[in-house]
Amino acid sequence: MGYRIMMLVAVFSATLLSLQAQDKLLARLGYPEGTRLLIVHADDLGVSHSENMASIKALEGGIVNSASIMVPCPWFPEIASYAGQNSEVDLGLHLTLNSEWNSYKWGPVSSKDLVPSLLNDKGYFYSSVDSLMAAGQPDEVELELTNQVKKALEAGIDVTHLDAHMGAAVSKPEFLVAYMRVGRAFELPVLLDKRVYESGIPEVQNLIDENTVIVDNIFTMGPQDFEAGVASYYNRILRELPSGLNCLLIHLAYDNEEMKAMTTGHRYWASDWRQADFDYFTSEAYRKLLEEENIKLITWRELRDRITSNK
Amino acid sequence: MGYRIMMLVAVFSATLLSLQAQDKLLARLGYPEGTRLLIVHADDLGVSHSENMASIKALEGGIVNSASIMVPCPWFPEIASYAGQNSEVDLGLHLTLNSEWNSYKWGPVSSKDLVPSLLNDKGYFYSSVDSLMAAGQPDEVELELTNQVKKALEAGIDVTHLDAHMGAAVSKPEFLVAYMRVGRAFELPVLLDKRVYESGIPEVQNLIDENTVIVDNIFTMGPQDFEAGVASYYNRILRELPSGLNCLLIHLAYDNEEMKAMTTGHRYWASDWRQADFDYFTSEAYRKLLEEENIKLITWRELRDRITSNK
Repeated sequence: MGYRIMMLVAVFSATLLSLQAQDKLLARLGYPEGTRLLIVHADDLGVSHSENMASIKALEGGIVNSASIMVPCPWFPEIASYAGQNSEVDLGLHLTLNSEWNSYKWGPVSSKDLVPSLLNDKGYFYSSVDSLMAAGQPDEVELELTNQVKKALEAGIDVTHLDAHMGAAVSKPEFLVAYMRVGRAFELPVLLDKRVYESGIPEVQNLIDENTVIVDNIFTMGPQDFEAGVASYYNRILRELPSGLNCLLIHLAYDNEEMKAMTTGHRYWASDWRQADFDYFTSEAYRKLLEEENIKLITWRELRDRITSNK
Repeated sequence: MGYRIMMLVAVFSATLLSLQAQDKLLARLGYPEGTRLLIVHADDLGVSHSENMASIKALEGGIVNSASIMVPCPWFPEIASYAGQNSEVDLGLHLTLNSEWNSYKWGPVSSKDLVPSLLNDKGYFYSSVDSLMAAGQPDEVELELTNQVKKALEAGIDVTHLDAHMGAAVSKPEFLVAYMRVGRAFELPVLLDKRVYESGIPEVQNLIDENTVIVDNIFTMGPQDFEAGVASYYNRILRELPSGLNCLLIHLAYDNEEMKAMTTGHRYWASDWRQADFDYFTSEAYRKLLEEENIKLITWRELRDRITSNK
């Protein structure tokens, strides 16, 4: 459910500054003007065994070329072990500040009494981003995000990027500052788009420099798209993909007993949604469409190593 | 895996004190001398969705009449919700100080910096009881056990008893004191057998009074029994069941993808073991054997309400 909140915010047209930065980004990556770059990115790894297995299958067998991991979740050790043994796979962290399901919960990596504003009265992360926005203290957000990155690095994961589960870490400007500061501290690209120029907070602008990766477009299926048909949504996104750097956020899992129980009571982003994503992104039709449209896949590792950490 | 460690300790014959206490217990419960009382008890509820579903099925459809819940585990909210809606079911707490699987982990209910001696370098409970015994501070054990009971009560569970996951909370005398103190603080019976008289710590003896329930025999399948045949082990236990208060500890889950992945790398107490337990304790043969042997089932709720809290 990465970035959903940000997608609901109105998208403003890019400023001259951002256009200049992006032209430079394409050139620095060695791609001609007009190239359609795409990261096909699976969210929520670590949340369940089902999510881990389906995502690994699609990363290995389909054309899904990047994913991110939820460090506080119970199945983190499984995906961390996979990451350690498959260091070529492009895996970042899906920085997590919410625990949104009903029957199955997790809390922070940090000691609970160091991040009390992030927790509900049961000691778990809030179910909703709204609750986090109302109560969360930015310094506690920054501490928890930092501890998630540290834990992943200590587990042996070659972290390629950071992004934000449910958009929580970018849901208000004060959290956005914390998120960008953590990215800078670890020399990791963080998922951002041009709305970062509209935050209204000078500190955000001060955190943008030529090593900042700013994605031109973030696409992710919403409830209306799901109701209208999964394949038609993705076919349209790929056929109409603009030039520049694009990121498509998807959610892969099997519609099995574990996943049905985990997502019970939720109509959207539930087990059937994730099975439909899996079916599409492991299909031959999708593979052919990528080729027909001459879309160029790019990973976060390439962006990290050539732009952000500038190795 | 409740009480495994205690079962490995040599069983000493009961003292005169204990025999007197037990005769009194049977009499206070209104059963004649020679009655074979049995609690058929499912451990590990809350550890996974599979464990929850299989245990609920056996509690409702089989002759399994008691169970206990692991409060720190990810699927605790699912079983807590069930407990709230089915208050007639006999549910206690499987007090948890270990996280023993490889791919799937949990940590304490308490804030981590209040119980540092209970945690490994990744912030989870230790995998082994040995590690806990070496590092765990008794005051931190007592705090964590207390917080598990508080959380369960706040979730609306009518807690009928306490017992010890993997026997960790009874693995050394100092932990046993903490465990018994928590039982007394909440007026709940804790699973104990006659070995409690052999602890060598005066404080343990001071915690025993006429409201203390002491089980005559605890039975639970071990690796050799499993290898030799699940049904033959349980058939023998039931046919040879002594008179007095007996407790049979079992582990119920479905041998499905979630459970296979959770227990991967473990030969015993794994998904096939739990499916075999489920198959036996929902079988017609088991039901008939209980009848043939004239075994009288008793719940922890009856023991709590008539003995420990003396309502």
